[in-house]
Amino acid sequence: MAAINQHFLKLSAGYLFPEIARRVSEFAAAHPALATNIIRCGIGDVTEPLPPAAVRALHEGADDLAHRDRFQGYGPPSGHAFVREAIARTQFRDRGIDVADDEIFLSDGSKPDASHFLEIMGAGNRIAVPDPVYPVYVETNVMAGNTGAADADGRYEGLLYLPSTPQNHFVPSPPRERADLVYLCFPNNPTGATISREGLKAWVDWARQHDALILFDAAYEAYVRDPAVPRSIFEIDGARSCAVEFRSFSKNGGFTGVRCGYTVVPKSVTGTAGASRVPLHGLWMRRWSTCSNGVSWPVQKAVAAMCTAEGEMQMRALTDFYLHNAGILRGAVQSMGLRCWGGDNAPYVWVKCPEGMGSWQAFDRLLHDGQLVITPGVGFGSCGEGFIRVSAFNSRANIVEAGARLRMLVTADSTR
Amino acid sequence: MAAINQHFLKLSAGYLFPEIARRVSEFAAAHPALATNIIRCGIGDVTEPLPPAAVRALHEGADDLAHRDRFQGYGPPSGHAFVREAIARTQFRDRGIDVADDEIFLSDGSKPDASHFLEIMGAGNRIAVPDPVYPVYVETNVMAGNTGAADADGRYEGLLYLPSTPQNHFVPSPPRERADLVYLCFPNNPTGATISREGLKAWVDWARQHDALILFDAAYEAYVRDPAVPRSIFEIDGARSCAVEFRSFSKNGGFTGVRCGYTVVPKSVTGTAGASRVPLHGLWMRRWSTCSNGVSWPVQKAVAAMCTAEGEMQMRALTDFYLHNAGILRGAVQSMGLRCWGGDNAPYVWVKCPEGMGSWQAFDRLLHDGQLVITPGVGFGSCGEGFIRVSAFNSRANIVEAGARLRMLVTADSTR
Repeated sequence: MAAINQHFLKLSAGYLFPEIARRVSEFAAAHPALATNIIRCGIGDVTEPLPPAAVRALHEGADDLAHRDRFQGYGPPSGHAFVREAIARTQFRDRGIDVADDEIFLSDGSKPDASHFLEIMGAGNRIAVPDPVYPVYVETNVMAGNTGAADADGRYEGLLYLPSTPQNHFVPSPPRERADLVYLCFPNNPTGATISREGLKAWVDWARQHDALILFDAAYEAYVRDPAVPRSIFEIDGARSCAVEFRSFSKNGGFTGVRCGYTVVPKSVTGTAGASRVPLHGLWMRRWSTCSNGVSWPVQKAVAAMCTAEGEMQMRALTDFYLHNAGILRGAVQSMGLRCWGGDNAPYVWVKCPEGMGSWQAFDRLLHDGQLVITPGVGFGSCGEGFIRVSAFNSRANIVEAGARLRMLVTADSTR
Repeated sequence: MAAINQHFLKLSAGYLFPEIARRVSEFAAAHPALATNIIRCGIGDVTEPLPPAAVRALHEGADDLAHRDRFQGYGPPSGHAFVREAIARTQFRDRGIDVADDEIFLSDGSKPDASHFLEIMGAGNRIAVPDPVYPVYVETNVMAGNTGAADADGRYEGLLYLPSTPQNHFVPSPPRERADLVYLCFPNNPTGATISREGLKAWVDWARQHDALILFDAAYEAYVRDPAVPRSIFEIDGARSCAVEFRSFSKNGGFTGVRCGYTVVPKSVTGTAGASRVPLHGLWMRRWSTCSNGVSWPVQKAVAAMCTAEGEMQMRALTDFYLHNAGILRGAVQSMGLRCWGGDNAPYVWVKCPEGMGSWQAFDRLLHDGQLVITPGVGFGSCGEGFIRVSAFNSRANIVEAGARLRMLVTADSTR
């Protein structure tokens, strides 16, 4: 009898974004005349064309494959050396951050990386996650058997939730309780919050003191404009012994459909195996050698193209564009008299719903009355109840219109 | 304390192909003058240019990303509907095999698929693998904790090994012992053996009778020229209730550097959760939704291009070319008086070494005396000892020369 992984059965509702897609499809089917009017500021998916340097590199990569003498088959499982070098140099060393070429592991995205990283970690670790949080961190741990069942609020037994609220500016402090693996994401998805160097230093110090591992998600680092805000955990002294970092080209280069991310695993970070310590670098390398044949050749060329002066300039223009969008959304929300966070060093604006309005209620109202799709904050965790996340990833015209439609949140609708 | 997955520590030597690469690098460094003379028939990596239809589609995909109105971001986690439809129709339904569009799950390759599939299967399953076998099947089970430690022969405790030998024509029969998950690969890597419809039917009947799951690797199906040889397990009655199938575009379309494979999961195949039965289709879908954002857009377009009359013709030309290579290798081996298998419906020729010569001994002799890289059979399992695998993936000129160099196996070398 082939037994399934019963931990999957603990997963409560569907993954957040498929659930949103379902509600939107249902609405569109019921109101075909309104369907074309829908503006999507829900899922954090980019909308603008790929940077020209990336497009050119994709074409070059395709041409390589057409010629026998330039053909590329299986590459190194963690990425071609010239790509790893380009990333380590431009994204880290040129910014004064100590990362070696072979500490970069290319993948097809941050979501898979975060999921796969659990394969090299053992059972019995206590996992801490912020609340609200990117659902992937929670659900991959459920699947891996690192939690018990969910309670009525959707919180899983055994996970340590770190509330992120207006009181702590959506930056949780290190816990007093034991935690072995902690997920941190700054600039934050979903709240758009950033962490200060001092705040991040406190986490690194705590992790070293308690022999914990920080899984740092820096997918949104390219949105940081404030020089006081760290863009990598490896800007912090001591992080090379207690942290790994997930990075992506999705939000800076617009690679959501191209698919490329990477994990930075310092050679000095270790985990325990009984009384001994084992470098995670070797385990992660072994995992890649055994389970993957690396990233598509044209995609790797496109990544290398992003790690040039031209590519960096084009990525900057792209993130500037979305940040300007975020500013428009912030202005619209503030003019309505609602509170919001994020949107200055992040592409997400986190909005407090009007008093008494729940997240899904806000979602349904904006969808039905305004044909505007946002993400209900409660989908990211119970501390997200009463908030919504509005994504700045859209065209300028749509963002201006979305700003206007957000007014539905505070407008009494005579038809209901 | 962040604990690691200690099952990784059971893995004996490095993964086979990195070990081969290490020995070749060492040789090249020690003998720089001979390094340029090396011919690689080791790893099963294609060498010929990508089919023109795929190259054209990669270019179109890159252009799509350059235009706002054709831009593609996140796609469905299991692949775009038009790609899944094209695969299900051309690779299955047009051949009279019942597979629905949504039973196709696109991925970045068969190796990751085989690895990830274990995530949805539970602990406690008894795993059966042929010996010799593609090492990924064994090592991913070791990492997942489905085995004990390795013995002196590299065999892992708890795995059920199914000897594939000249006596059974390298096609093991269903075991008498209990097994819950069985890996089968036909045409076989590494032996090049094929299975008859009757042989495969016996496996399907056994699996249904014992409620076992067959993980069928059909990565080499495009090399089948004999109409009596099945190309998919779903050609066999009853397989839709007891099998999943891994497929790849690496060996038919030459996508080893492009990266795309897929898994076929019939909606009717289930696993057990205590007393209940759970369809694997939903679990696999949930795994993909949570852990992945799908395959690169230009790559998906290239896959769709392979599923057209033009694409199929170009893939056929490519596999014809490599099969002709395999015939040359077979002829060379036979003219030396050695026995070999495979190479007629498969791109691998499996050669019995001269009496008394071990696999790594043959490897080292061919590398040092002939600068020819092959794969030692014992690297695939202890039943592979005394065999080597010669890959037909190379240029015609190199294959002709490789055929000549294989003679080193039977030539006494006066210098040693």
